[in-house]
Amino acid sequence: MSDIVTFGETMLRLSPPQNERLEDVDEFEVRAAGAESNVAIAASRLGATASWISKVPETPLGKRVVGELRQHGIDTDVVWSHRGRQGTYYLERAGKPRGTNVIYDRENTAVSTAKAREFDIDRIQNARVFFTTGITPALSSTLRETTANMLKAARQGGTTTTFDFNYRNKLWSPDEARETLTQLFPGIDVLVIAARDARTVLGIEGDPRQLAHRLGSQYDFTTVVVTRGAEGAIGWHDSVVHEQAAYETDTVSSIGTGDAFTGAFIARRLHGDDVPTALEYAAATAAIKRTIPGDVALVSKEEVDAVVKSGGTDLSR
Amino acid sequence: MSDIVTFGETMLRLSPPQNERLEDVDEFEVRAAGAESNVAIAASRLGATASWISKVPETPLGKRVVGELRQHGIDTDVVWSHRGRQGTYYLERAGKPRGTNVIYDRENTAVSTAKAREFDIDRIQNARVFFTTGITPALSSTLRETTANMLKAARQGGTTTTFDFNYRNKLWSPDEARETLTQLFPGIDVLVIAARDARTVLGIEGDPRQLAHRLGSQYDFTTVVVTRGAEGAIGWHDSVVHEQAAYETDTVSSIGTGDAFTGAFIARRLHGDDVPTALEYAAATAAIKRTIPGDVALVSKEEVDAVVKSGGTDLSR
Amino acid sequence: MSDIVTFGETMLRLSPPQNERLEDVDEFEVRAAGAESNVAIAASRLGATASWISKVPETPLGKRVVGELRQHGIDTDVVWSHRGRQGTYYLERAGKPRGTNVIYDRENTAVSTAKAREFDIDRIQNARVFFTTGITPALSSTLRETTANMLKAARQGGTTTTFDFNYRNKLWSPDEARETLTQLFPGIDVLVIAARDARTVLGIEGDPRQLAHRLGSQYDFTTVVVTRGAEGAIGWHDSVVHEQAAYETDTVSSIGTGDAFTGAFIARRLHGDDVPTALEYAAATAAIKRTIPGDVALVSKEEVDAVVKSGGTDLSR
Amino acid sequence: MSDIVTFGETMLRLSPPQNERLEDVDEFEVRAAGAESNVAIAASRLGATASWISKVPETPLGKRVVGELRQHGIDTDVVWSHRGRQGTYYLERAGKPRGTNVIYDRENTAVSTAKAREFDIDRIQNARVFFTTGITPALSSTLRETTANMLKAARQGGTTTTFDFNYRNKLWSPDEARETLTQLFPGIDVLVIAARDARTVLGIEGDPRQLAHRLGSQYDFTTVVVTRGAEGAIGWHDSVVHEQAAYETDTVSSIGTGDAFTGAFIARRLHGDDVPTALEYAAATAAIKRTIPGDVALVSKEEVDAVVKSGGTDLSR
Amino acid sequence: MSDIVTFGETMLRLSPPQNERLEDVDEFEVRAAGAESNVAIAASRLGATASWISKVPETPLGKRVVGELRQHGIDTDVVWSHRGRQGTYYLERAGKPRGTNVIYDRENTAVSTAKAREFDIDRIQNARVFFTTGITPALSSTLRETTANMLKAARQGGTTTTFDFNYRNKLWSPDEARETLTQLFPGIDVLVIAARDARTVLGIEGDPRQLAHRLGSQYDFTTVVVTRGAEGAIGWHDSVVHEQAAYETDTVSSIGTGDAFTGAFIARRLHGDDVPTALEYAAATAAIKRTIPGDVALVSKEEVDAVVKSGGTDLSR
Amino acid sequence: MSDIVTFGETMLRLSPPQNERLEDVDEFEVRAAGAESNVAIAASRLGATASWISKVPETPLGKRVVGELRQHGIDTDVVWSHRGRQGTYYLERAGKPRGTNVIYDRENTAVSTAKAREFDIDRIQNARVFFTTGITPALSSTLRETTANMLKAARQGGTTTTFDFNYRNKLWSPDEARETLTQLFPGIDVLVIAARDARTVLGIEGDPRQLAHRLGSQYDFTTVVVTRGAEGAIGWHDSVVHEQAAYETDTVSSIGTGDAFTGAFIARRLHGDDVPTALEYAAATAAIKRTIPGDVALVSKEEVDAVVKSGGTDLSR
Repeated sequence: MSDIVTFGETMLRLSPPQNERLEDVDEFEVRAAGAESNVAIAASRLGATASWISKVPETPLGKRVVGELRQHGIDTDVVWSHRGRQGTYYLERAGKPRGTNVIYDRENTAVSTAKAREFDIDRIQNARVFFTTGITPALSSTLRETTANMLKAARQGGTTTTFDFNYRNKLWSPDEARETLTQLFPGIDVLVIAARDARTVLGIEGDPRQLAHRLGSQYDFTTVVVTRGAEGAIGWHDSVVHEQAAYETDTVSSIGTGDAFTGAFIARRLHGDDVPTALEYAAATAAIKRTIPGDVALVSKEEVDAVVKSGGTDLSR
Repeated sequence: MSDIVTFGETMLRLSPPQNERLEDVDEFEVRAAGAESNVAIAASRLGATASWISKVPETPLGKRVVGELRQHGIDTDVVWSHRGRQGTYYLERAGKPRGTNVIYDRENTAVSTAKAREFDIDRIQNARVFFTTGITPALSSTLRETTANMLKAARQGGTTTTFDFNYRNKLWSPDEARETLTQLFPGIDVLVIAARDARTVLGIEGDPRQLAHRLGSQYDFTTVVVTRGAEGAIGWHDSVVHEQAAYETDTVSSIGTGDAFTGAFIARRLHGDDVPTALEYAAATAAIKRTIPGDVALVSKEEVDAVVKSGGTDLSR
Repeated sequence: MSDIVTFGETMLRLSPPQNERLEDVDEFEVRAAGAESNVAIAASRLGATASWISKVPETPLGKRVVGELRQHGIDTDVVWSHRGRQGTYYLERAGKPRGTNVIYDRENTAVSTAKAREFDIDRIQNARVFFTTGITPALSSTLRETTANMLKAARQGGTTTTFDFNYRNKLWSPDEARETLTQLFPGIDVLVIAARDARTVLGIEGDPRQLAHRLGSQYDFTTVVVTRGAEGAIGWHDSVVHEQAAYETDTVSSIGTGDAFTGAFIARRLHGDDVPTALEYAAATAAIKRTIPGDVALVSKEEVDAVVKSGGTDLSR
Repeated sequence: MSDIVTFGETMLRLSPPQNERLEDVDEFEVRAAGAESNVAIAASRLGATASWISKVPETPLGKRVVGELRQHGIDTDVVWSHRGRQGTYYLERAGKPRGTNVIYDRENTAVSTAKAREFDIDRIQNARVFFTTGITPALSSTLRETTANMLKAARQGGTTTTFDFNYRNKLWSPDEARETLTQLFPGIDVLVIAARDARTVLGIEGDPRQLAHRLGSQYDFTTVVVTRGAEGAIGWHDSVVHEQAAYETDTVSSIGTGDAFTGAFIARRLHGDDVPTALEYAAATAAIKRTIPGDVALVSKEEVDAVVKSGGTDLSR
Repeated sequence: MSDIVTFGETMLRLSPPQNERLEDVDEFEVRAAGAESNVAIAASRLGATASWISKVPETPLGKRVVGELRQHGIDTDVVWSHRGRQGTYYLERAGKPRGTNVIYDRENTAVSTAKAREFDIDRIQNARVFFTTGITPALSSTLRETTANMLKAARQGGTTTTFDFNYRNKLWSPDEARETLTQLFPGIDVLVIAARDARTVLGIEGDPRQLAHRLGSQYDFTTVVVTRGAEGAIGWHDSVVHEQAAYETDTVSSIGTGDAFTGAFIARRLHGDDVPTALEYAAATAAIKRTIPGDVALVSKEEVDAVVKSGGTDLSR
Repeated sequence: MSDIVTFGETMLRLSPPQNERLEDVDEFEVRAAGAESNVAIAASRLGATASWISKVPETPLGKRVVGELRQHGIDTDVVWSHRGRQGTYYLERAGKPRGTNVIYDRENTAVSTAKAREFDIDRIQNARVFFTTGITPALSSTLRETTANMLKAARQGGTTTTFDFNYRNKLWSPDEARETLTQLFPGIDVLVIAARDARTVLGIEGDPRQLAHRLGSQYDFTTVVVTRGAEGAIGWHDSVVHEQAAYETDTVSSIGTGDAFTGAFIARRLHGDDVPTALEYAAATAAIKRTIPGDVALVSKEEVDAVVKSGGTDLSR
């Protein structure tokens, strides 16, 4: 049984080389990419046992996704489906002023039909943490229900529920997201949310410390983490607010940084750290993730320790 | 105005390197691939002016498809759509006994909603040949109607209608295909069909010569070409049957060989060749295509001439 | 008929990966590259119809160049030649203090023998803008004459003539350039010139605003654009000077930035923009170009609009 | 618990592209490769649960090996070591008359120090089959003892012991191999051996049927499989000899074919097949493996079924 | 001082991957390629010391050529030139019926201006063998004279002169070649010539044995080798004719096979072998060359020995 | 005979692409890398003749190393060995806070058994400079003795001995290094040392000027160069201290920068420059090296001159 069980969609990410244009290349790089599996991998890298559950088409594409996740060290418990597509997305990465762009091709996927009863709910109830994100209920009405049912089951089993708000404006409007996600809030223990989403989608005002405090008090979360990208993060726990700065980093890929942060935070909390210490490890993990291409935080505990202790190394030989 | 106008879907083809498995690679090769655009390119290579018309999503993926077709020298007249996906397929290429496998991901595409009235029908009526294949009506009920309407419009404009039967068992059953396609036969002047499809889908019996004759007489085509892969082809015209052998070839990719054959046949018929001569050029074009990776017959007239004359060269320096 | 017709040489550009040395690699990247075709593509991306005319060897290399230009959406009207080479150049890209270096291998090319009478002059006279650069007359005495004849024909047809000074010190000396190019000035309506060239080659003095004014008054141009790289550009029109700053950008490749600027400027002027607005779009197009590898401005109108309006996006998903 | 537990060394395989020379390339392809893990993967592909146990250096290289095996679907139970190298080998693949060549760099590896007591022996004793090969005891005197101890433990736990003779002449002499391996024979239930090894190393004479029979009788194995490469295999069981031909195949990589054969044979025996049926599936799996680059049999059950039933497909679309 | 000195042009060879078309790729493979340097390398691989002399532009391209030759183990003695191009050629490799095609771009090269007096003639006169081919005098009238002068100098120094006829129909007509090359014959000791060239260019008739005999007698050579590609070779020496069959081979690249043959023949003759033995080693070297991509015979003495003794190995591990 | 003879180990460097993780890639880049051969190449680039002597396994890996060094223009005089491995190392390159990491796999190499008497000592005694580094004696006790013997022989032959301290903490402790290397100091004329090593290993205190002075006086060197990375270098000679700043550079790879500096310094000293001038050229060479991937300073004299004169160029066309 895993310490952490995550549930969500993992897509096949197709992308031209950094800076190249989708319309002009003859090869796409292929990677598995999904917020929930990213979090599982990051947590696993920091020492927790982690698994990802989902519904996946029984095709070479589905097998490719599952194989890549297994390679990175997590367990998978997958409902293999003969219906529904493998979700894909096309990623074009560029700097200013062009910016990075994503084209989703994730309709009619196998996962969008996943119902809670298709999964082994014991796996969730025997875990210490259940994790999913606001992307999952955005994918279909079936998944809205499934997410709610899984959170409920986790609670019943005494499993801590952790949820990353993760608003995606290409999936739904702020109004739809707010209405759906706030209905899930009563079943959530730990909320992770970007300061921008708290403001734009939930309409909460104030500086990040105020955002964390207002979210925590209003919705009765145990813990709230407000993330601010390169400006660090805020943790709110037992009515106390903790600030964590971001580490300096030579960023190669910022995609997946939030997932690295969250996965490390969960793992270190499970390990017994208090919130400020867990935030420190989360920030260090996020900083190393930024030096790694792809979505996944292929870090080692030793590296994260080194960054927490001394800010990392230059050349070791 | 083009000599030849073709209509159909061109997909983005995603494939691992030859022999590699989809589930095990980190890069996919990307190419535009579609029977109707392949035919247009092959015809254009042999000297005809050719264009492809279709409905394409206004995304980098759609632009990539159109750009690649233009690169190969044909004109494109495209309805840009804000709805519907770009069709894709995954191609895994292998030898015996594994074989080559295709995974279609072409549902809910932009082209599946294309109606005849969205196109400039004058372009079809001013052409000398209109071409499409049995794949097009297999894609949606809308496209069944559109195909029928375009064939009708072509006839009214005095444009010769050429049709490749192209049965695909991953798109529909033999019964569905027979029922739909035989209804289109009265609007078709020139039919190209694989001997296997004539037998399995249409239920016609006999050796290839008999197949050609029976098809021609029964459905009142002007010309029938029965293709037999590496065993050559049969042409039926004015009740006379002509046999054409295949040229010896070092095959690198057999995909698109039929389209190369058909495109060359159309171009040479337009050029004024009689059926036996056109078949000879078609066979030579198909043979060179087999030496070229990808779906597209990037041949030159000079090369085709050389093969017809002398069977090709070895090393020229 | 195209809004814009451009004339010039497009070479095959051979280059090792960024930072690698020509003498040490086993693969060269291959691209088509030429100032005039770059301008046509940039203009086409912003909504103008554009074509490129030239003389090209009828070899796979020549066909490759033409195919790549067609892929990017412009029309080509090419005199195919059985004599003369395809021009190539070798590009080694590096940062400070090594710098980027170019080795031209463009002697005895097909284009260097091109005469005005080999082209369909109606195409120029029916266009709204004819464009070439100071590179073209630098390539051969034949091309000096051809350039003059084409500018003359354009004027006679009422076509606006736009000219980018584009001095190349590996092709000729400042003296040769000045003597040749100032003879062409009376036939030119719109001049684009780098501030450095105005000073070094034409010997004009002053700050960029003064350069623009002096050039405009002295040679009786309708419009003068003085470019200053990362420091922006100056437009002079109807005796009024307009300044345009450069947008902040994460530069991946600066080659072709000037051509992107000029192509966008022409397209927006044709669209009806006044000079300051056209300069703004030109600067935005140039900024996006800098994020794209290769010489060509593969931008979209929507992207350019977004940069003009808001300075571009970061991550859109 | 897994149906099958395998024990042995898995190396990092470094190779230039097919046909290229080690001394002349700038990139090596990297793959995990080991007979025992290959067998586990092949068995897993045919439906058995399989795991690989070994001792691996706790370095990125060791993690890379383990990650790749997990990606292919097997479980790993690894003793992480802070001493000893990760074994590597360099593979140069070529046709006649050059031939394929291997340079081993596998001395002083972590695995060469592995002792039985470092592993969870319950895992072996709870499995249905324990598998290793003649390579393992060739690697060090420690491993000779470990292999003997593991075979003994398996027997004690009622686990069937299967052993592939796998003589490697770059590791030891025929005399050393014979002396060591025949001492292990009393602990082995099922022996797989190449006809050539039976003759050259064990000194047994006769045609392959005779080899199987003599080995079975002389050493009291339950089952003997004599492999003959492209000429098929012989199975001896309950004193009955069964012949199995090889399937026709377009060979891309013959390395790992024997492991694919053995893994499938084990899986189908566990599934309940009699020896002739298991040999048939083993031959089909080996045939598909030959179409796949790399050492690993990335086949699916459906593909193997299809080959057994009909000899495979050509193009499916 | 080297045993063998060779003189000629080595070009930069630019090619798409095997089977791909020049007009359709975005990367060219780059290699140094020249008959005379190929011969030096092959001879060096078989144990002779060898050097290549030439005139090369002092550019990164010229340095790349020289660096690659040095990498392969020969010495270079190069006149660095500030004038003249580096010769290049484009190679498109394909099977039947398309065939392999070469586009030369080797006019106005530095080497075409090389005069004998620019080189250190002592180097030639102190060598045991001087070697060049019929390509060299085909490149310019200057090189015709230079070739004659070098052959004369070699003779004066007591150096054996070996010459490969190497007719290239893209460089000159049979008549030009015959007239020029037969004038050089009196200065040549050992002639290597393809049977086809002996017939087509020199107009000699007969089977290969007769060709060798007639050439030897008519022009007073010491030794004549008539090559016949996959059908082997004929050696004529002291009025005796020796036949050598070709070894069976899985051909990957046939370009450079003749040079491998000639280089090995020279090296073995220098080593003291009689003509039949040298032919045997030459055939074995050529056979291994055919398994290697590129023009160069990167063989080892041990491999050649193994082929001569046993026809080569299959898999050695 | 070469101006400079260097002695040491050159390894095969295996690395994933920049920023990628060793455990996650399928291809390693391969290069030859060694401090002493790097110095020889840098010196050769600046006009000195240079050679590298070592002991290398007679395998394709050993030949690959030697071939690459020859390609870069230096001579090699190698003892080919049938025993001992080719040293390799794995390099993972990343930015902050992850840093670059090296995994050595260089035990039991051929070079670690090299004795002075295996080499042609005349080659050292006839050179003007003999060079090795503190890495060499760190590799084995045999090499400690060999290094001492070679330094002694050089002195006896009147050859200047230059030594780069090059402490590597993955090879030995500071105490071991200090004890061994200070014993070699009496045989050394010119010492190059990083300021950090002088402090950490030798325990000398002070600012870099003081370090240079104290080292020079205490150990009686002719010349001491103290390097400080991006902060420049200090030269001490004849009791005078000279400071040299580093040039501004867009760093692509900092590995090998010190070797580039040292090689250029030696070459310019041999050329006759005084210490301050030699330091200036050394700094310029190091700056260009930083723009080049890989360990090797593939610079040209012209480029170095340009940087010394004007700080380098931007774009030259």
